[in-house]
This record gives sequence, C-alpha cells and structure tokens, in this order.
Amino acid sequence: MVGGGRGAFIGAVHRMAANLDGQIELVAGCFSSNPEKSKLSGQDLYLDPARVYTSYEEMAAKESALPLGDRIDFVSIVARNDMHYKVAKVFLEAGIHVVCEKPLAFSLAEGKQLRDVAMNSGLVFALTHNYTGYPMVKEARAMVRAGKLGRILKVVAEYPQGYAITALKEQADGAISNWRMDPSVSGVSNCIGDIGSHAENLAHYISGLELEEVAAELNTFIPGRPLDDDGSMLLRYKGGARGVLYASQISTGDENNLNVRIYGTEASIEWHQEHPNELIVKFAEQPRQIWRRGNSYNGPEAAKNTRTPFGHPEGFIEAFANIYRAAGEAIADAILGNPAPIAGYDFPSIEDGVIGMAFIEAAVKSSKNNSAWTKLDV
Amino acid sequence: MVGGGRGAFIGAVHRMAANLDGQIELVAGCFSSNPEKSKLSGQDLYLDPARVYTSYEEMAAKESALPLGDRIDFVSIVARNDMHYKVAKVFLEAGIHVVCEKPLAFSLAEGKQLRDVAMNSGLVFALTHNYTGYPMVKEARAMVRAGKLGRILKVVAEYPQGYAITALKEQADGAISNWRMDPSVSGVSNCIGDIGSHAENLAHYISGLELEEVAAELNTFIPGRPLDDDGSMLLRYKGGARGVLYASQISTGDENNLNVRIYGTEASIEWHQEHPNELIVKFAEQPRQIWRRGNSYNGPEAAKNTRTPFGHPEGFIEAFANIYRAAGEAIADAILGNPAPIAGYDFPSIEDGVIGMAFIEAAVKSSKNNSAWTKLDV
Amino acid sequence: MVGGGRGAFIGAVHRMAANLDGQIELVAGCFSSNPEKSKLSGQDLYLDPARVYTSYEEMAAKESALPLGDRIDFVSIVARNDMHYKVAKVFLEAGIHVVCEKPLAFSLAEGKQLRDVAMNSGLVFALTHNYTGYPMVKEARAMVRAGKLGRILKVVAEYPQGYAITALKEQADGAISNWRMDPSVSGVSNCIGDIGSHAENLAHYISGLELEEVAAELNTFIPGRPLDDDGSMLLRYKGGARGVLYASQISTGDENNLNVRIYGTEASIEWHQEHPNELIVKFAEQPRQIWRRGNSYNGPEAAKNTRTPFGHPEGFIEAFANIYRAAGEAIADAILGNPAPIAGYDFPSIEDGVIGMAFIEAAVKSSKNNSAWTKLDV
Amino acid sequence: MVGGGRGAFIGAVHRMAANLDGQIELVAGCFSSNPEKSKLSGQDLYLDPARVYTSYEEMAAKESALPLGDRIDFVSIVARNDMHYKVAKVFLEAGIHVVCEKPLAFSLAEGKQLRDVAMNSGLVFALTHNYTGYPMVKEARAMVRAGKLGRILKVVAEYPQGYAITALKEQADGAISNWRMDPSVSGVSNCIGDIGSHAENLAHYISGLELEEVAAELNTFIPGRPLDDDGSMLLRYKGGARGVLYASQISTGDENNLNVRIYGTEASIEWHQEHPNELIVKFAEQPRQIWRRGNSYNGPEAAKNTRTPFGHPEGFIEAFANIYRAAGEAIADAILGNPAPIAGYDFPSIEDGVIGMAFIEAAVKSSKNNSAWTKLDV
Repeated sequence: MVGGGRGAFIGAVHRMAANLDGQIELVAGCFSSNPEKSKLSGQDLYLDPARVYTSYEEMAAKESALPLGDRIDFVSIVARNDMHYKVAKVFLEAGIHVVCEKPLAFSLAEGKQLRDVAMNSGLVFALTHNYTGYPMVKEARAMVRAGKLGRILKVVAEYPQGYAITALKEQADGAISNWRMDPSVSGVSNCIGDIGSHAENLAHYISGLELEEVAAELNTFIPGRPLDDDGSMLLRYKGGARGVLYASQISTGDENNLNVRIYGTEASIEWHQEHPNELIVKFAEQPRQIWRRGNSYNGPEAAKNTRTPFGHPEGFIEAFANIYRAAGEAIADAILGNPAPIAGYDFPSIEDGVIGMAFIEAAVKSSKNNSAWTKLDV
Repeated sequence: MVGGGRGAFIGAVHRMAANLDGQIELVAGCFSSNPEKSKLSGQDLYLDPARVYTSYEEMAAKESALPLGDRIDFVSIVARNDMHYKVAKVFLEAGIHVVCEKPLAFSLAEGKQLRDVAMNSGLVFALTHNYTGYPMVKEARAMVRAGKLGRILKVVAEYPQGYAITALKEQADGAISNWRMDPSVSGVSNCIGDIGSHAENLAHYISGLELEEVAAELNTFIPGRPLDDDGSMLLRYKGGARGVLYASQISTGDENNLNVRIYGTEASIEWHQEHPNELIVKFAEQPRQIWRRGNSYNGPEAAKNTRTPFGHPEGFIEAFANIYRAAGEAIADAILGNPAPIAGYDFPSIEDGVIGMAFIEAAVKSSKNNSAWTKLDV
Repeated sequence: MVGGGRGAFIGAVHRMAANLDGQIELVAGCFSSNPEKSKLSGQDLYLDPARVYTSYEEMAAKESALPLGDRIDFVSIVARNDMHYKVAKVFLEAGIHVVCEKPLAFSLAEGKQLRDVAMNSGLVFALTHNYTGYPMVKEARAMVRAGKLGRILKVVAEYPQGYAITALKEQADGAISNWRMDPSVSGVSNCIGDIGSHAENLAHYISGLELEEVAAELNTFIPGRPLDDDGSMLLRYKGGARGVLYASQISTGDENNLNVRIYGTEASIEWHQEHPNELIVKFAEQPRQIWRRGNSYNGPEAAKNTRTPFGHPEGFIEAFANIYRAAGEAIADAILGNPAPIAGYDFPSIEDGVIGMAFIEAAVKSSKNNSAWTKLDV
Repeated sequence: MVGGGRGAFIGAVHRMAANLDGQIELVAGCFSSNPEKSKLSGQDLYLDPARVYTSYEEMAAKESALPLGDRIDFVSIVARNDMHYKVAKVFLEAGIHVVCEKPLAFSLAEGKQLRDVAMNSGLVFALTHNYTGYPMVKEARAMVRAGKLGRILKVVAEYPQGYAITALKEQADGAISNWRMDPSVSGVSNCIGDIGSHAENLAHYISGLELEEVAAELNTFIPGRPLDDDGSMLLRYKGGARGVLYASQISTGDENNLNVRIYGTEASIEWHQEHPNELIVKFAEQPRQIWRRGNSYNGPEAAKNTRTPFGHPEGFIEAFANIYRAAGEAIADAILGNPAPIAGYDFPSIEDGVIGMAFIEAAVKSSKNNSAWTKLDV
C-alpha cells in the first residue's frame, strides 16, 4: 500500500475491503511521505519493519527485486490525487500490478499518459470506483444489457453531500476537505472531481452509455475557496439519451446520497446508495418492483458479488471488497498465467479513469464558458 | 364553471375540491363548446337547465345581469389553455371574480394583458397551482420565512411522469395528451408548460426566491410530436441561489412524482407530492426530522389547511380544496365588503401566472438557443 | 344526521365524505341533545331550521311523515356508542335506511337485537368501518379472493396510536378521549372497542377469514382509567390460520398506524393506512411488488373506488366517501326498486357490526380470565 | 474454530467478521466431524495442516499444550446446537476463552451447567447474538439507559422470515433447514429457538427489561415437521411493561425482517434490521426523528462500533464483527492481565444465553399448555 497512514479514512477502508475474504494479505507499505509516520503505521498493521518503506520509489525497487511469491503481487495506491500518476507509473514500470484510488490522475493529460504506460505494460490496472461493486448495481447493469429497459432515453444522477456546510458556517475549513480544496493537490475541481465523477462513472457503468458533452455550472458557495463545492449539469449521451447530473457538498443534512435513475422505453431503474440492497424497477403499466440482494431471481453478476443471504444487509465495505476481489482474480490469473475469462473481469479500468478525467475537465471548461455545451476529450 | 364537461378529468377534480367543505355550490355552467354536451353535463350535475349555457359569453352576460345573491359569485375556468385568456377577460369585464386553471394563458403576452385586465378590475383572480395547497407545503414555506433554513443556496425540483411512454411504444397518441401536443391549443410547450411550470411555481412558493434565468434543453422523444415531452434545466435565482429543474412525461413507471428540495445554510427541506403528509427536514449535524401533518408542532398556516387529525392521510383533492377555500374567503370578503386580512390571502395569484408564462417561454427560447442562459421576462 | 354537532370530529368527516361526489345532500338533522347546540349546528350547515330537530324521535317521526322525495332518504348516525342502538332502532322502525358509525352498539346483546330489527325491516344498514373503503384495501381483498395468496396461514394486524400518552403525562384526561373512557357511554372497552375493532374488521374484510377465538391481555397504563388503553392478543381463525392483533393508544409518537399483513402459501400482502395508496405484495422468490392506486393493472373493485389518477394521492376522506357511495347505491336501488347487483354491495354490514361486538366482548372476557382462549359468540 | 466447514453459512460469516479489522487471525480449526472435510476446509483457509484437527477434543488438548503466544487465544464455536455445550466445556476446561454461536446449548439444563463451568473458569465467554452489534442498536440502548424514553410501557418484537415456505410448497425440506427441524440436534424448538430468541435478546438488550412470563402459541404449518415453524406470544416484563413477540419462517416474501419497537412514556424507538443504519425516534408531540449511523450526535457506544462515515452503509458483517471486537478486547485484557474497563465489555454473555434458553423452553411449555402464562426459569 502507498498512502493510507494513520488517520487516513480511505486507507483503512481499502484495508478492510482487501482483508474481508481472507484472500489478500497486506505485507508491505509506504504509508506516508513522513518516514516516522509511515513506520508507526506499519507497526499498527503488524508489518515486518523491513517492508515498511520511506519512499514509494524505494518500495517499488526493493519489492520488485524480491523473488516472485515473496514480493508483493500488486500495489494499492491510496495517496492524494497529485501522487496517483507518479506512484502508479513507478510500480507499473517495475512490473507490479496496480489498484488505484480515483480520480485516475491530477489532470486529463496525466491520465492519458498513464493509460499509455499501463497499456504498454500489459499489467492489471484497477481503479476503485467502488460504487460499481454493489451487487444491485451489477444487477442493474445486467438488466440494461439484457435489454429489459428497452432503449434508454434519460439518465438522472445525483450526489448531494452536506458535510462542507459546517465549513461555511464556521467560515473555516474542516480537516477532511483540506487538501481537496487545494488546486495544486486536488486538480481543477473539488466537488465534481471528488464525487461528481463517481456519479458519472456509476451512470456509465449501469447504462453502458457514452457521455458526449455537458453544459455545466460549478459553484463555490463557501467564501474564500478556490475550487467548486457544488455543481450541476445537463448531459448529452451518444445515441440520443439525455440527462441531468449534480453533485454537491453543501447540501445540508445529506450524507452520501448518491442516486441514479435510468429511464428506458420499456422500464426504468432506480438505485440509492444509502439503501444499496434494493433496486427499484418500474415497468410501464405494471406494479413497481423492488429487487433485493441475495435472492434466487437475481442474475449471476449480482450473485457472484454477494456474501450474505437475503435480508442480511451488505454495505459499503462489502462493495469495496468486490472491486478488490475482481482485481485480485485478474492479478492472480496474470501471475499464474491463466487465460482471462471470456466475459472479462468486472472492475473499473484505466479507461474509465480517463473518461472520468475528461468529464471533470469538460465540466470545468463548460462552467467557465457560461455553461456552453462542451465535449469530453476522451 | 366554464369547461369541464363529461369526461374531463380536471373539471371533476375542481368540483370535488369546491364541494368538499359545503361552502361553495355549483349553480351554473357552460361545460362545453358543444351545446348538447354542455346540457347533458348540466343534467349530470343536477343544475337548473336555465343556467346551463351554450357559450361563455352568454353565461357572463346573463349571470352578471342577475341580482347579487342570485348570480354566481365567481366563475371557475377549466377549459383548455387557449381559452383561459378569452374567458377570464369576459367574466372579469362582467364584474365576476375568477378562479382559473393553470397555465394562466396561451402565451406570455396574453398573460400580461390578462394581468392588466384583472388589476384594473379590482376583482379576485386565483390560479389553481394546486400543489401549493398541501398543508406540509405551507409548513415548508413557513419554515423558510421564519429563517430556519438560513440563506438558501440550492433548489432541486423534479417532476417526472411516465404516462406518455405508452404513446411512444404504440407510436400513437393517447387521448389524455391529445390537445396538449397541439401547439395551437397548448402553446409553445407541452411538458414544461403543463408540469414543469408546477415545479417552478412550487419551488418559488416555498423558497420565496425569484428565478432570474434558465439554461434549458427540451426534448421530444416521441417521434412525430411537435412539442416537448421532457426537459431539464439549470436555474439561477436572484440573490445567488442555484438550482436544477426537470420535468418529463416519458419517465417510464413514474406517476406524478413531483418533488422539491430546498437547501439552506442551516437546514434543508424535502417534500414529495406522492407522500404529501410528510415534510423531511434536515438540520446540519442533527437527527433527520419528519414533520407530519396534523400535529400540534405545525404552524398556523398548515393547521388552517388541515381537515383530518394526524395519521388520517389527506391527499390531492384536499390540497386542491384549500385553493378554493382561500379564494372563496377572498371572494366572500370582496362581496361582503370585508377588509382583506393583514397577512393577505394564501392562493396563487395572477402574478404567479405571469411568472409561469415567462418561465415557459424562457425555457423554450433557451432550448432553441442551444441551452444559452435566458432571462425570464416578467 | 343524528349527532355530529359543533366540535365533533367524526360528524364533520361524515359530512365531507357524503358531500364529496355531489350525490348526497344533507337536508335535516338532530345534531345534539342540547337543542340550542343542535340549532346552531344546523345554521352552520345552511339547513332549513324547520328540519333541525331537538330529538331524534321527533326527527324520525316528522321526516317519515313527509312524502317520499321530500323526506330524508336515509339517516346518518354519528352519536356516541350508547345511542347507536336506540337511534337506529327508531329510524328503522320508521322505515328509514341507516348509515351508522361503529361500533354497532353498546354491547353484543344490543347489537344482536339491532341485527334482528334491521333484518326484519328489509332496509339498508351500513356501518362505517371506513378503512375498508380504501382502493388498495379493495385490491387486497380481490387478490385474496382470486387465490393469489394461496391458503392463508397468518394474519398480523396492528393499530398503535400514541395520543393518550399526553393524558398519562399530565395525569389528566384530554377532551378527545373523555367519553371513550366512561364505561356507561363507551361500553366494556375503550381501546379494543374503538380501534382494535377496526383492525379486526380490516383483517376480516381482506382475508375473508372468520375469527374463532382470542387469547387477549388488555392493559390500562394511565392511572385512574376504568377502561383499557392498550391490548394485545393471539388469534385463531377457522380453517387453521393463526394471528396476532394489537391496538394501543399509549404508543408514544404513533399517529394512526393501522397496518395489516396477510401471509399465504403463495404470497403475502401488506397494507399501511398511513401510506394508503400502496399495497405491498410479496410472492415467494420473486421481486417484491408495490401495487399503486389508479393503475390499469388494478382490478375493477379498486378502480370503482378511485377518484384521481395514479400519483395523485387519495386519503382518509375519499375512503370514507366510498362507504357512503356504496351505501348510497344500495339505498337508491332500494328506493327506486332496482334489483341489487349480483355481486352485492360493498360496504360493511350489520353482520360485520355483530362480529365486531363479539370480538370486543371476547377480548375483554379473555383478558379478565388471564388470557384464556375465548370464543367469539357471533 | 470448531465447525464451519465447507458449505456452512455461519462459519464463513464468523470468519469474515473476525477478519475484518485485521486484529484476529484464524490459525487452527476442527471444521467438521468428517476428517477429510475438516482437512479440506483447512486448506481452503490456508491453515497449517498440523493445526487442522479431526476432533475438538484433540484440538483443545493440543492447543492448550502449546506455549502462550503460539496457542490459540480463543475458540470460536460454530457447530450445531447439540454440540455447543460439549465443545465449550472442553475448551473452557482446557483454559481457553470461548466465542460461541447461539443458542447457548441444546437445553436450558445444559445451558445452566455450562454457565457454572464458565463462571468457575473465570474465562471470557461471548455469545454471538450478533444483532446487538449494530451501532444504532447500541444507540437505542444508550437512549433507554439515559432515560430518554421515560418509563417503558410496551415492547413489540417481530422476526418474520419466509424461506421455509418453499419447503411447504414442495412438500420437501430444503437443505438449509434440515438439521434445524431435527429435535435431536436442534432442541425443543426450531423457529422460536433459532430466530425468536434473537428477537427476545434484542428487545432485552435495548430495553434492559427482564422478561417474566409468556403466553405463547407455536405453530407447525409445514406438514410432517416435528418442530415449530412459526410462533406468537404475549409478554409480561418485570416492572409492568407488556409486549408482543412473534417469529416465523413461513411469512412468504419476508427475508430477515427482525424489527423491534420500544414504547416509553416520553418517547418510542423503532429499529429495523433490514435498514440498520437508521433508528426511528418518536417523542410525543414532536417531529419524528431519524437518527443515522456515523453522525456526531450519536453517543460513544455507537461511535465505537462504527467503521465508515455517515451515508456509507454498514451491514450484517460489520455488526457481527463488533461482537468479535468486543470479545477480542476482553480476551486480550484477560491474557495481558489488564483490568476490565469500568463500564464492562459490550458483548452478549453466557447469562444472556441462559435467559434465551429459559425463554425458548417457557414458550414451548406455554404453547403445549394452551397458551397459559408461563414463567421463565432463569
């Protein structure tokens, strides 16, 4: 693991997710650019001190020098946005598979370069757009693919959070959003980059549609902030579907209210992240349906990503663990020389990451241009 | 009543709403431009045949000639959009108060003319934007007015319906949407005009904010239709609040899913028309609150518009009846020469109607101009 | 109308319900045993003073002496429990049809006598167990009748309210529950009699099952009260189904939370009075279904009792109005000499009232006998 | 681990739960009475073959012979009901701490004997009544303890499942419920023993009330089954509170619908296992409150048992992991000689297990005695 030292929220989530099934073991890490903090984090995690590194370059060099079986099978990158490209590149060049936090990179340009590096390496590169890991999200995608929705006409993706309102009220910036509001670390966007991109990715994952252009307005409601804390946009998809997407961190009282609705000519579906075990399905002129996780009527994609029986709720960590499990299968196959399954692996790819970066930059550009329609430069 | 003959949905709703409290009695009408249909409708309603008219001009003339007390106190106009202006004008000029279905008129220009006529007449003019009649909508407005939400930052208004998808599937137009798709009757918009304007009005009623400009995209998904059946837009309110609004008739499986969310610096509120007896209130860092109709903790505005105790659900007709009751109070006061209450009457006014027309025309204009920001010409 | 003078909640509901469709007109009444109050109530309602009576005996005598067409077609009895029998008997004997509030009578013995009177009279007798008037309750019953649930195994009926907790907290009795706590007016039970009997009736209406015996415990939590304010019981139905029923007035924070669940071998259904426009249907190993009012997939029983389109919520008054409408049809047929429809009329009968009285008395008896199983003496 | 070999649902859950935080490592096991199956299960779990045992007696003997630090710190017993007593006794007598699946034992008599053994040993004994591990259940308990509900009057605990209906439909017994229907393995009850006891324990955990007696009816709807598949009962708690509890496996379409409602004189609370991140709180005459996991307004008990921020749902495995974490703390303290915290440890104890067994036997006895009130013999 690179990043994720003491006090980092997302690092702990990655470790729980990787740990859950007993198939992945954390054996080495560079948890902080501060050597002392990295060392202490390694102790917390019962690691061999010899494999707790003070720089990611050192880690990549020393681990790749170990014999296969002893060395790490892959690296998990949970450092800040501006480090993703650098760290991933070093490990890929050292021949080590990569699981990387989103966004893919600091900028679209960096993201495209990283795509080239990854493609040339032939190694596995998984991006943790974790919301795609939920079983009922997979069921939703399977429904779309099976044509149950007919032709898709409209997409509505929402991602309101309210946590930043505290900063506004206090006229002071809370710790959690600190580096996210710093353009030199976070990139050109805060809110759309951090959570808007999840909404975009989720809508894409379920619908299979390709986003062509956006007309966006990004807002900064908290005085003194250099980056957006809210944004809304109209969407045009290839093939004629239309949509609305918004994300916000100043939506007082909302928590992590990611929702997506996909409307087709035959049926529509609706999924709410805060009630992830249910998928609402509405066929025209039929009783509304609630598909629930763990039932025999769900398809193999959902079943494969389910750990507990119906009625025993699964949550965020389990969904996250599904990304690790799928990436782990791909990595194991690569290491063991197994052929990939015909249906491919089911985890967000570096291509999804490039689309995400193109989405963020298009939204920012549109907003600066008075919401003019702006194409994604994928 | 003018319009609302046999088979007309909204006419029957108006009659039930007016009837509910036993304070308004239907005594005369011109229910159809077809004299025979008008006559039969009058029979259905147990009316004196002498007061069932074959033209609205005749009705206005004959009724206004009757002595006060015998003549109608007001007219209820439930005819098609293109008739609103003509009918209302004739009755206002005959000295008769008016309750009128929305939209106010066929066009913004007509609407403004009608505003002049009404203003000059000094008579009561109520527009049945009925969703403002719900008690918990009134509670929501009272909360905003009392400053409980702090400064409002964001508005999200949604109005998806799915009924028109049947037309798309059958490639044939259903009866209900027939005249609504005819620009010579309906005006420049179908979906935004019919239901988008409800969402706009509701957001305005609760938030008190004035909408300044929109960036809209209107869509026509059903082939061969001359008017929109779907539309989405970004909103800019005076004072800096921002928003999103969309309305749709092709949202498969949705029924009458009007929702509005208002986000302030201190709290946010959320109201769903299909569960109208509840108002969701979210203060920052406090347990979520569900305010329910009929409780002692609700304010006088909600209490005044409540007929049954808590837990005994009220619905669409009761909300509609609240518009009639408030208009009825104003009309009674005008007829009896009572002074208006200091706080004013609580029903949608002709000014709301003009705003609605300006909203519809701005949205259509923006959409034709590739979603350019377009100001409301109120 | 007999009873329902100024300040009486249920009288006002009856009038709105009767009024809603414009088919029933209130023309005479005896609104209070207090002549002055009765007179003023009549004025409030714009009645002819000559038909506002000071005793129900006078009303029955004078009205029945009027020629058909001028006289009332039926009487609506909304007086207190101990008056139901006396008033109903007088009107039935005067040849006037009856709509009566529940419970049917002060005691089971009185109820059975009234059944004899009504049967012998050949007149219409409708009991306003109003919760059976909801469209989705009718849909539920139709599903059971159509065999969609298979054989019914289990019934769960709940009716928690919390309003009486205030009395407990204040150690003083609130106005609303005043006479209900007086055994000389209310009968042998307060809570089970007032609301438990609604739960029993609703479960019976939907399931079609006949309740055979109960094992009950009735509680009085508010000190100094002579009657129960809470009660729970086990149920045995004829044919082997089993159940649980409870009702409560001390369930803090609950409003009018009447719910019923019916479990069959093929499917189960669940209906919540506070969200009456939905019916939850669960088939084994299938996605959960939400049946919603006003849709084309609902059967004719629900459709007949529906006034507004899907998504336009109906509530308590509309359901109540459905009882009046069905009773009104039966009364009109009787007066006009029309044959009854083959399927019969759909309103709660005097037989339902007798079952209700037997249920109340069995529950009280069981509770006094340390919850011993006690048969209903229907 | 003892039990939980290939194909066992609950064994896998225990392992994920223990694994989640990276603080507990599975190092030895006897996974099946079938030596080959035990061995293969050990391979699946990457265990040292030398520590995969063919009998639990062997395991207890060999592990306790290892030096501290090398030997297992505790055993997790996930074998069938009839094995709990025997296995736990052997490990306790070998000086090894125990985490044990519920029910505590095959019978109340066995349970009491085991209590004596455990008490005398001075070792940690934790019972995995896992539903008490949910953060919002802990919040509920803290509210009750803080007196926010006032005096508790009523408890309603429900646990309907529907999975067994398939067996009824097929007239054949599904694999999952196989041994549960065998009295020689399961004990005197199936449904009440398996899930009714969870409802009893949860109500006790939150309310703090002691159950005194029950009036129960247990049913067997699936022909040919020797044990109950459904049961309902009235409850009397010490101190005057009353209640209702039912559990069912034939409630078609229900999944794992454990719910509990606690009504006090000041407020009531309501928790639904299938939506575990929310706690509904109803104060008299105040807006309903939804307390949500992960917020700053929750108390330390909930906070300590929370892994992800608000809005990032936690589920069944995380709740289960909280039992392991609390037991793990107690075991670590015991091994390290640390004093126990003043507030004690927060996991279900052997005393809870004895209460559970007394509950099961009282319910069965009452049912056989025509639902006579029957005291718990704790």
